[in-house]
Amino acid sequence: MTAERKMALALLVNGTGHHGASWLHPSTQADASTSIEWYRDTALLAERGLFDLFFIADTPAARTSNLEAYSRFPIFMNVFEPVTLLATLAGLTSHIGLGGTVSTSFTEPYNVARQFVSLDHLSHGRAAWNVVTSANDFAARNFGLDRLPPHAQRYERAQEYVDLVRKLWDSWEDDAFIFDRTSGLTFDPAKQHAVDHEGKFFTLHGALNIRRAPQGHPVIIQAGASDTGREFAAETAEIVFSSDASIESGLRFYRDLKGRMDKFGRDPDELKILAGKPVLIADSAQEAEDMFQTLQEMIHPMVGRMRLGMDLETDLSDLPLDEPIPEDRIPKTSNQHKAYFDHIVEMIRTDKLTLRQLYLRYERGNKTFRGTAMQVADNLEDWFAAGAADGFMMNFSIMPMGLERFVAEVVPEIQRRGLFRTAYTGRTLRENLGLKRPANRHVVPAPAPLEVAK
Amino acid sequence: MTAERKMALALLVNGTGHHGASWLHPSTQADASTSIEWYRDTALLAERGLFDLFFIADTPAARTSNLEAYSRFPIFMNVFEPVTLLATLAGLTSHIGLGGTVSTSFTEPYNVARQFVSLDHLSHGRAAWNVVTSANDFAARNFGLDRLPPHAQRYERAQEYVDLVRKLWDSWEDDAFIFDRTSGLTFDPAKQHAVDHEGKFFTLHGALNIRRAPQGHPVIIQAGASDTGREFAAETAEIVFSSDASIESGLRFYRDLKGRMDKFGRDPDELKILAGKPVLIADSAQEAEDMFQTLQEMIHPMVGRMRLGMDLETDLSDLPLDEPIPEDRIPKTSNQHKAYFDHIVEMIRTDKLTLRQLYLRYERGNKTFRGTAMQVADNLEDWFAAGAADGFMMNFSIMPMGLERFVAEVVPEIQRRGLFRTAYTGRTLRENLGLKRPANRHVVPAPAPLEVAK
Ligand SMILES: Cc1cc2nc3c(=O)[nH]c(=O)nc-3n(C[C@H](O)[C@H](O)[C@H](O)COP(=O)(O)O)c2cc1C
Ligand SMILES: Cc1cc2nc3c(=O)[nH]c(=O)nc-3n(C[C@H](O)[C@H](O)[C@H](O)COP(=O)(O)O)c2cc1C
Repeated sequence: MTAERKMALALLVNGTGHHGASWLHPSTQADASTSIEWYRDTALLAERGLFDLFFIADTPAARTSNLEAYSRFPIFMNVFEPVTLLATLAGLTSHIGLGGTVSTSFTEPYNVARQFVSLDHLSHGRAAWNVVTSANDFAARNFGLDRLPPHAQRYERAQEYVDLVRKLWDSWEDDAFIFDRTSGLTFDPAKQHAVDHEGKFFTLHGALNIRRAPQGHPVIIQAGASDTGREFAAETAEIVFSSDASIESGLRFYRDLKGRMDKFGRDPDELKILAGKPVLIADSAQEAEDMFQTLQEMIHPMVGRMRLGMDLETDLSDLPLDEPIPEDRIPKTSNQHKAYFDHIVEMIRTDKLTLRQLYLRYERGNKTFRGTAMQVADNLEDWFAAGAADGFMMNFSIMPMGLERFVAEVVPEIQRRGLFRTAYTGRTLRENLGLKRPANRHVVPAPAPLEVAK
Repeated sequence: MTAERKMALALLVNGTGHHGASWLHPSTQADASTSIEWYRDTALLAERGLFDLFFIADTPAARTSNLEAYSRFPIFMNVFEPVTLLATLAGLTSHIGLGGTVSTSFTEPYNVARQFVSLDHLSHGRAAWNVVTSANDFAARNFGLDRLPPHAQRYERAQEYVDLVRKLWDSWEDDAFIFDRTSGLTFDPAKQHAVDHEGKFFTLHGALNIRRAPQGHPVIIQAGASDTGREFAAETAEIVFSSDASIESGLRFYRDLKGRMDKFGRDPDELKILAGKPVLIADSAQEAEDMFQTLQEMIHPMVGRMRLGMDLETDLSDLPLDEPIPEDRIPKTSNQHKAYFDHIVEMIRTDKLTLRQLYLRYERGNKTFRGTAMQVADNLEDWFAAGAADGFMMNFSIMPMGLERFVAEVVPEIQRRGLFRTAYTGRTLRENLGLKRPANRHVVPAPAPLEVAK
């Protein structure tokens, strides 16, 4: 670790804020999730804060049952499609990376490869793709299936999918397009390399119909937490979002994941682990805590049950609120987000909480950090100094309020401490993150310059 | 026809211009097809000219054989993916409609339905989807097939696809999202209408995860020319691009297509026929003719052969240039763009031209109109007054030069003649075109106000 090491910052954005009741808070714009003006202003604010990445989560489905609960907590019920949203933002921002989620389970590699290269050109090298396998049966039913394919098979398809997309991303050499009016050639025919792929899930013979991306390849993000998910990330990802509650477990995850890379011939520096940081900032720790409790009290029991049931993969709507969840209501196996499922089961078994206590305590991923700007800066520094993260995926309970305070108060503080950049240093997302630009697999690297003997 | 009737104008854009040799012209930007700055400037210019629609053609494939010819005429070898490009332009323009091509043969209805509604929100009601079935085997090979499915089957799938997409576009009522902090509900659960579709090509049970589009439905464009294609358009399309060489054949097409609508319960006004108008404007007719001939001479024989062979669905590369194409080299049947194929066969049989003469004369669709700005205005007026078109799909041999002259010289002239708007009158593409906003199929129309008897 040198003095030069800086943390990376990503921002997870989904409208009014990370907290399920945020849209009820009077400072938020309730319909933010489909307001392009809201997204533009938020992205520009994040850019003023020198964030590396503006990130959009996604699932390709609205829920169609239990609608009253989803109306009270409208997760993915009314959102922009990520790639189109990011393409609009590409034209309205200049520096920040633009990362979006697209599922490998319900799309075609050629189309997704094209859209991300297109986004990379439209943004001059700022595109990133969050590779997910999707984890709900509502999505499956939008694509001709009754339910999700098994977890392991989804990851097998994801791996072949990403390999194939990367082949497509190399189907033109960087300097293939020459537009030479003298010879009359727009490209050098020898610099197209058509893909010939015959795999378990996909057959594809062809070349992408757009020149190679400014970043070589758009950046690959992944957030798998299960063993299968980690193997996939170790082989494939360049950014991983982790979600650990303590520095100790964060360090364990960090070492585990980076330790898996060597067997795939990868250097640990080729992957940046960004720890998820849900944050609520106020003038004092007590005020932050009070705000958080106020939000918690606004969670309707219907929503609490639904959120918990969603990740426990079972319907909890008939259970009494003030008694523990009976052991026999815990499903034997899971097929969605395995890591979330395991976490809830562990909480049920060890903490003996009532259903109400449990849903109030449960948050997907890391717990919300409540405190002052200075305490947030301390927390980020502690994690970073301990080597438990290369940076952070921030998300704020209430938006844009949380981001405003972070940019105004936390960013100057971590800059003062030498932990964060004071200006964008690169032009592309890769350059800002310190990720190498991938060479084209079809190009033999030029020999190193000869050392002239004296 | 009232004095109020105004023509609609669309612009077909594909980089340096419509002519195959345009990229060699010194006034063009050779790499325009993947320059967002070029597209931005061009869209803003079209917006100054009060165009209704900025339109992007597409096929999801680069050619991977005969590369030297394709390098000399790089049709779809290096282009932005249309939806991402239009999403960026949505944020950089304010009034012009944004139309893009997406194939129903190689995509999933849920994803496409979502992306176009998203684009419609991002542009505040300016999205249009050009529905095509794709017509080359290179595309098929990017999606696991050896060759295209048969023409009739592609259209059968297209019809089911569009029906399904429209069901998804109605899966929320216009006023479903209420964001009512008092009741704690973001939407009225009774106003979601999940789709239950079990068809020949698709099964889908679900609702879109974005509120209804500003336009109700994004506008549907279609350009089928075969009998099957026309039936599809008559049932489904709201804009059709025609490509006829004379007012007489234009009128025949216009009447034929509008005449087919009644049996689908549609009013002729629900579909706008825009005649394709490739145009080259100069200070005199002679100068325009000279410029055209200069461009024609720049067509490499390899390209001429390839272009003709592409639409004749056969390889012509071994044939002598200065002899006619032998009858036995004409394929018995076609499976791509049937209308183009038939046109070439007719030219071969009736005009007895050499291969070289034929490729110089052949242009996909309508012939390029060469003349002064005043002659162009006259031509548009003649077509419009004859009732052979509701408007025009302009494309210019050399871009942006052609568009610049059109906006500076033709637009004021057709305005002076009362044929074209002098300001955008609507906020959405539908409003500008005079197309009705589709009601949601799940909403019973309010009863007409009672006429009070005197
Ligand atoms: C910060 C973060 C963001 C995520 N974003 C998405 C997303 O947008 N869509 C999705 O389907 N899953 C998303 N996931 C879920 C992961 O892709 C993954 O499924 C989950 O962490 C469980 O791991 P597993 O798939 O290995 O069981 C996200 C997870 C994290 C931690
Ligand atoms: C102005 C115009 C634009 C078109 N754009 C596309 C396009 O972007 N992609 C495509 O595959 N076909 C495109 N086509 C082809 C039509 O969709 C259609 O296939 C063709 O006119 C032949 O008709 P048919 O399909 O009924 O045989 C276009 C046609 C015209 C006239």
